[in-house]
Amino acid sequence: MTAIAPDAARLFETAALAARQAAHALAAAPRPRKDAALHGAAASLRARMAEVLSANAEDVAAAEGLTSAFRDRLLLTPARVEAMARGLEEVAELPDPVGRTLAEWTRPNGLVIRRVAQPIGVVGMIYESRPNVTADAGALCLKAGSAVILRGGRESLRSAGAIHACIADGLRAAGLPEAAVQVATTADRGYVAAMLRGAGLLDLIVPRGGKGLVTRVQEEARVPVLAHAEGLCHTYIHAGADHAMARAIVANAKMRRTGICGATETLLVDAAIAPALLPAIVQDLAALGCRFRADDRARAILPALDAAAEEDFRTEWLDAVLSVKVVDGVEDALDHIRRFGSEHTEAIVTQDAAAAELFLARLGSAVGMWNASTQFCDGGEFGFGAEIGIATGRLHARGPVGLEQLCTWRYQVIGTGQTRP
Amino acid sequence: MTAIAPDAARLFETAALAARQAAHALAAAPRPRKDAALHGAAASLRARMAEVLSANAEDVAAAEGLTSAFRDRLLLTPARVEAMARGLEEVAELPDPVGRTLAEWTRPNGLVIRRVAQPIGVVGMIYESRPNVTADAGALCLKAGSAVILRGGRESLRSAGAIHACIADGLRAAGLPEAAVQVATTADRGYVAAMLRGAGLLDLIVPRGGKGLVTRVQEEARVPVLAHAEGLCHTYIHAGADHAMARAIVANAKMRRTGICGATETLLVDAAIAPALLPAIVQDLAALGCRFRADDRARAILPALDAAAEEDFRTEWLDAVLSVKVVDGVEDALDHIRRFGSEHTEAIVTQDAAAAELFLARLGSAVGMWNASTQFCDGGEFGFGAEIGIATGRLHARGPVGLEQLCTWRYQVIGTGQTRP
Repeated sequence: MTAIAPDAARLFETAALAARQAAHALAAAPRPRKDAALHGAAASLRARMAEVLSANAEDVAAAEGLTSAFRDRLLLTPARVEAMARGLEEVAELPDPVGRTLAEWTRPNGLVIRRVAQPIGVVGMIYESRPNVTADAGALCLKAGSAVILRGGRESLRSAGAIHACIADGLRAAGLPEAAVQVATTADRGYVAAMLRGAGLLDLIVPRGGKGLVTRVQEEARVPVLAHAEGLCHTYIHAGADHAMARAIVANAKMRRTGICGATETLLVDAAIAPALLPAIVQDLAALGCRFRADDRARAILPALDAAAEEDFRTEWLDAVLSVKVVDGVEDALDHIRRFGSEHTEAIVTQDAAAAELFLARLGSAVGMWNASTQFCDGGEFGFGAEIGIATGRLHARGPVGLEQLCTWRYQVIGTGQTRP
Repeated sequence: MTAIAPDAARLFETAALAARQAAHALAAAPRPRKDAALHGAAASLRARMAEVLSANAEDVAAAEGLTSAFRDRLLLTPARVEAMARGLEEVAELPDPVGRTLAEWTRPNGLVIRRVAQPIGVVGMIYESRPNVTADAGALCLKAGSAVILRGGRESLRSAGAIHACIADGLRAAGLPEAAVQVATTADRGYVAAMLRGAGLLDLIVPRGGKGLVTRVQEEARVPVLAHAEGLCHTYIHAGADHAMARAIVANAKMRRTGICGATETLLVDAAIAPALLPAIVQDLAALGCRFRADDRARAILPALDAAAEEDFRTEWLDAVLSVKVVDGVEDALDHIRRFGSEHTEAIVTQDAAAAELFLARLGSAVGMWNASTQFCDGGEFGFGAEIGIATGRLHARGPVGLEQLCTWRYQVIGTGQTRP
């Protein structure tokens, strides 16, 4: 399985040309057929669970020497396979995003112009060794009418192959082309390189993973990229915050789950409220196991806190560590966020509506929150039903990317013989 | 003026950092201030017309040896400068695209989620030696709240500099940073290379020009690109077309203006209607000066037509030349368009609603038209007021790109202290 394929580029091109044909069929497929494929795939995952678990056991056995967190992400259990199957069924229940009329207007010359949602075409997805992403991303792209080529981490290829076989069962049973969802069958890194150079073969690349992967994709891709980069999220406690609410939000935003991209990494506290509030926040978080990196003004209040270096404010901890800084009002907080943030998600906690509105109006990030935990930045929590990730770029889509964001649009212009003067 | 700058990359970086600062100010600027800058720029263009014309005369004098079409695009006259000034005023009259609420919904937990239009940030525009684009693109970006760095063709730098001075007058008078609209002051090609490598410095590159320019940008850019590539547009005459309407639409779609990207380059005619209709269409167009490249089935009807090579169907003529092919129904027409088209604009002419709906539903192009001339693919004709070009990619924006498409969005999430379970 670790053998280098003789010609990864050719393998990819063959897959991409088949995907293009499949994309045409999928774009024209009515909703019931796509949903039947998803239900069929779910049924197959349950029926072939032993195969999937066995393939995964081989992957896990071969992954000796990796961290326990890595192995945990790679590992499948009966419950996790069942969760994947339920996920496929949930995507089937979501409305079809293709064909929606997004806008319609009539021109003075009588032309009717409609903007209509349309599939993107062929999507390439590059992700880590997380088998469940194979099912999730495959299902979302299928429902959005696009063909997809999935390239998971090299340690998960057997699992991805077994899961893919179940998706193929569903596609076949529904009369849709199997090439609509494909997985890379080689661990050769040349396959990823071929995807990145795939202008004309892929319409979009979605990288999901660590900063290194996403940066490499952005640097090397000749295909539009919907990047899911880091989430260096801030929670800003304004002078007008309710103390109890601030404590509850910060504890949740930092400690509910520390490893997700919507977790708060830096706490900004107004100087006017810090002496009264910061000790309680630190006490709450310390009780939950959190450590701190604090600037001088915060340490003037709480001298026991570790001192923060500038680099700490640039660090996405993804761990029980919080950078803490005392600031002087909304503009100062926004300045810090602009310099150190990743334009993912930032929250303000305040009872002062004018301050909140200023913060939300001036913030450049994909998601700005007022009196809510940054951990709400999630496709499910937004009501999208499922997400392929959180986009951190500025073009096409920002924030949680669900079915609607996985579509593009086209215009339909309806005339009665108009010619242009 | 043709001297190579010692360090074009440094020049660009200095401009881009100033643009980033200006973008923050511009994003926060209320509509009246942006409109005042546009009106001020228009007034300055009129007041300083002699300077602008003199700078342009130097450009034109230095451009000896170029084609007359190139010189015509480069040349400014008092009427053309006045048209630029009016264009600035027209952009001022358009609604402000920034801050619009695009969608709003409430989650079961009480969170209110709003998608709000926001400026893109810093835009880089690379275009040919057309001085009017300096004013048009500068105005659109300014109104859309984004800073812009304009790099016109090297033969137009003096004209661009003079026009830019007028825009700077308007910005200054309105109290907005001059760095919001900048033009490249060097002919060094290294400046364009620096723009293309400008990840983190530019948020978007808009190339507008010939296929070579756009392809180079797509190949080399490390920044998201909103490409305005070729328009290899098709008009398809279905068997159920009204003859008179088909003749009027084809004559307009091909010959109204042959040099614009929405001009029809290939005519597809159903075999069932071709013997009765094609001779009249050819006669109409020939009378307007059009020449033809026809496939064998069309030449079986009109043997005098020149024979088309396959390459002719891949050619964006931008001239009084039409490729002609006889096809067998909607699917055959769509197959040809998929193989040879550029996903810009295609039209079907028919009285058969089912055929038209099939064509519009299956078409992958940015714009599909029914019983209308492809030359309607234009921001003004779509009601956008002004456009920066016609996007031919699949991400972010397709078709005419006006103020709304020059924006991105962000989410605002309004809570009352919610934490995530």
